[in-house]
Amino acid sequence: MMYKPIKFTPPQFLALIFICLVTLGGLLLKLPFATEKEISWIDAFFISTSAATVTGLAPIDVGSTFTLFGEIVIMLLIQIGGIGVMAFAVLVVIMLGKKIGMKQRLLMQEALNQPSLGGVIRLVRNLFIFVFIMELLGVIFLVAKWVPEMGWTKGLYYSLFHTIAAFNNAGFALWPDNLSRFVGDPIVNLVITTLIMTGGLGFTVVFDLYYQRRFKKLSLHSKVMLVSTLIVNVLAILAIFVFEYSNPNTLGKLSASEKIWAAYFQGITPRTAGFNTIDIASLQQPTLMLMLLLMFVGAGSTSTGGGIKLTTFIVIVFAVINFIKGKEEIIIFNRTIRNQILFRALAILSISILFIFIATMLLTFTEDAGLMPILFEVVSAFGTVGLSMNFTPHLSSLGKIIIIFIMFLGKMGPLTLVYSISKPEKTKVRYPDGELFTG
Amino acid sequence: MMYKPIKFTPPQFLALIFICLVTLGGLLLKLPFATEKEISWIDAFFISTSAATVTGLAPIDVGSTFTLFGEIVIMLLIQIGGIGVMAFAVLVVIMLGKKIGMKQRLLMQEALNQPSLGGVIRLVRNLFIFVFIMELLGVIFLVAKWVPEMGWTKGLYYSLFHTIAAFNNAGFALWPDNLSRFVGDPIVNLVITTLIMTGGLGFTVVFDLYYQRRFKKLSLHSKVMLVSTLIVNVLAILAIFVFEYSNPNTLGKLSASEKIWAAYFQGITPRTAGFNTIDIASLQQPTLMLMLLLMFVGAGSTSTGGGIKLTTFIVIVFAVINFIKGKEEIIIFNRTIRNQILFRALAILSISILFIFIATMLLTFTEDAGLMPILFEVVSAFGTVGLSMNFTPHLSSLGKIIIIFIMFLGKMGPLTLVYSISKPEKTKVRYPDGELFTG
Ligand SMILES: [K+]
Ligand SMILES: [K+]
Repeated sequence: MMYKPIKFTPPQFLALIFICLVTLGGLLLKLPFATEKEISWIDAFFISTSAATVTGLAPIDVGSTFTLFGEIVIMLLIQIGGIGVMAFAVLVVIMLGKKIGMKQRLLMQEALNQPSLGGVIRLVRNLFIFVFIMELLGVIFLVAKWVPEMGWTKGLYYSLFHTIAAFNNAGFALWPDNLSRFVGDPIVNLVITTLIMTGGLGFTVVFDLYYQRRFKKLSLHSKVMLVSTLIVNVLAILAIFVFEYSNPNTLGKLSASEKIWAAYFQGITPRTAGFNTIDIASLQQPTLMLMLLLMFVGAGSTSTGGGIKLTTFIVIVFAVINFIKGKEEIIIFNRTIRNQILFRALAILSISILFIFIATMLLTFTEDAGLMPILFEVVSAFGTVGLSMNFTPHLSSLGKIIIIFIMFLGKMGPLTLVYSISKPEKTKVRYPDGELFTG
Repeated sequence: MMYKPIKFTPPQFLALIFICLVTLGGLLLKLPFATEKEISWIDAFFISTSAATVTGLAPIDVGSTFTLFGEIVIMLLIQIGGIGVMAFAVLVVIMLGKKIGMKQRLLMQEALNQPSLGGVIRLVRNLFIFVFIMELLGVIFLVAKWVPEMGWTKGLYYSLFHTIAAFNNAGFALWPDNLSRFVGDPIVNLVITTLIMTGGLGFTVVFDLYYQRRFKKLSLHSKVMLVSTLIVNVLAILAIFVFEYSNPNTLGKLSASEKIWAAYFQGITPRTAGFNTIDIASLQQPTLMLMLLLMFVGAGSTSTGGGIKLTTFIVIVFAVINFIKGKEEIIIFNRTIRNQILFRALAILSISILFIFIATMLLTFTEDAGLMPILFEVVSAFGTVGLSMNFTPHLSSLGKIIIIFIMFLGKMGPLTLVYSISKPEKTKVRYPDGELFTG
């Protein structure tokens, strides 16, 4: 018998690393000195998966359950998981030889043209510098707010934890009501949302912005990300403000300025950040529907966020508008979107919907709850968002295991799908084409 | 100024005819002698749309509300709407010059090769013959059951009405509990489901079967339709039997043989027939989820049914399995499924999901109900199914108008989409290609 070495595709390799990371995290979080009171194995692995996939769903209150050691484990899982996926996504983009559309002097382009070890190392180094600078800035601003209130040790630590959680779009907070106590606080609102959006735009966009500065010179991808992030966020903020204005359990009870901050925060956070300053379970049904959509759409490619990705959504929206208008070519910013890109977008949407449907159906067996809380939990897990209608603590053990799988699939799935669809196709025609009518 | 004649695309033409049909139907149903007691304009147009789109949703009880005249109007709307769409779908297939994969001697193929007026007329004549024979058989069998029970006049009329409703997959019944009183009746169960399936397989499959007889000789489309109809129906019947076995409000209260008949009937009917012999609102949540899927999937192309179509679903299932296995080509019955077909399938799935989402969100504004009854109603309307969790009578006026639009879109949308995607593309490249990362 010949010895056959096991070969991994890059996504399989990433999945393997993630499984190791989650397992290590789960073991560490189950250690006696990681928690104030004992937690179950399932909860330990749930929190570990939720942190490593930068989701933020938690069946137990993180702040009161874990010791400082446990919290630091969670923080590290978030940081490693967040950066890991971001770096992987960037590397896949390079390996596939995509045109990223930046000028030669750009380091990413260099790595692309000289796919040498040196180029890749420089690229990853730049990614780390980007993360470090953004998180340093986040900590500095939060320290200014929290150190006067909590003292140096706790203030610095809380600033670091929530900066890492926010930049990596992880949605974990050390307060039982997440960030609700800061509903009207300008500094916390602005710092957290800025970190969320910087992390969620994606590495390539930020670098493009840094090197090009003028909008006209940006790549199509960056232009689309910037404009659509702005439009989607503004629309979401306005919608939430209007839908919830007179809801006594959410915006209704707040002052005028708190109302604006809460709508602002809650409009930005569903696209995979997962923090909340108002009670999600108390939202009106139309608002929950809007949040389902935002959670499903998610953040940018090569970002710390999840979901089908904003560009996927935009391509499909343009395709639908074209279809209604009877136009054939999708043109965005004077660029034609190739059919292959639309194909990729439709595939991601379809497979995501299928997974969400299957997971929701499984949970209707294991959980005794209405469709909305179940679907909300599933979409939140699949988009690695972390918002919940306070349903996570009430999940059955089987339900928790299902959600663990969905968080994992939600993080790996879209990346793997893009990777496999983007692979250059081998042209081996063995069977004649068959005709199927599908309308 | 030059006079410019208005040109319609075939789908626009079909939509126009439908709008005329629905308007005429609504006006007729609002006539004083059409109803026993006065109905609202919205209800008249709701029933007219529901009948013409062969859906079967009804905010009022058809049997007790309408006079014989009103019921005959409904019956004619069903027959015209059902055959009309079927004929249109077949004509589109021909006009687009698709290979239907049948032998020369087949009349459809003749029409395809000689797209003369004569060929098309012969084709449509065959369609009419097919409908006439199937409905005649349906009436004969039902007459054998109902004439002894109800006498000649009522028995014959009820047989005709329910045959037309069943063959056209329209889901209307003249009893307030739909067909629940026949839950254990073999004749009604078998006749209705046979009509449903014959109408739902699609005209091309039935003709292919008629001319080829041997499975091996059938076209790929026919093979896929026959095998997947069998598999999906068997799985659905088994699932409903297991899920509902001990539910006291559905199968639990029935005898052993009634249980089997009820599961059999309810497993077949959600793929756009829309009849029911058990109470839909009392079903378990997993069963409702399964029905959502079946209603969404629907029947066959060029059939009387709706939904995204069974072949669309099968192509996507194969694509997902391929993706998980890491295989690239979709091969069904030794035929390669071209990427264009997958593209079409993904487009239909995506745009359908978008419409359903938007409609559901709109209804969360207008209706005060949980997500499940609302979503169930929307999917039922979009797939022109007609099943409801007894929610149609409780819809607000605005809600009814929304559902009217969804039924219309559900009937026109997929046809239009297939038509426009199948059109030969003009190759005019004005803008350079742009790159978008969508993963
Ligand atoms: K998150
Ligand atoms: K129907």
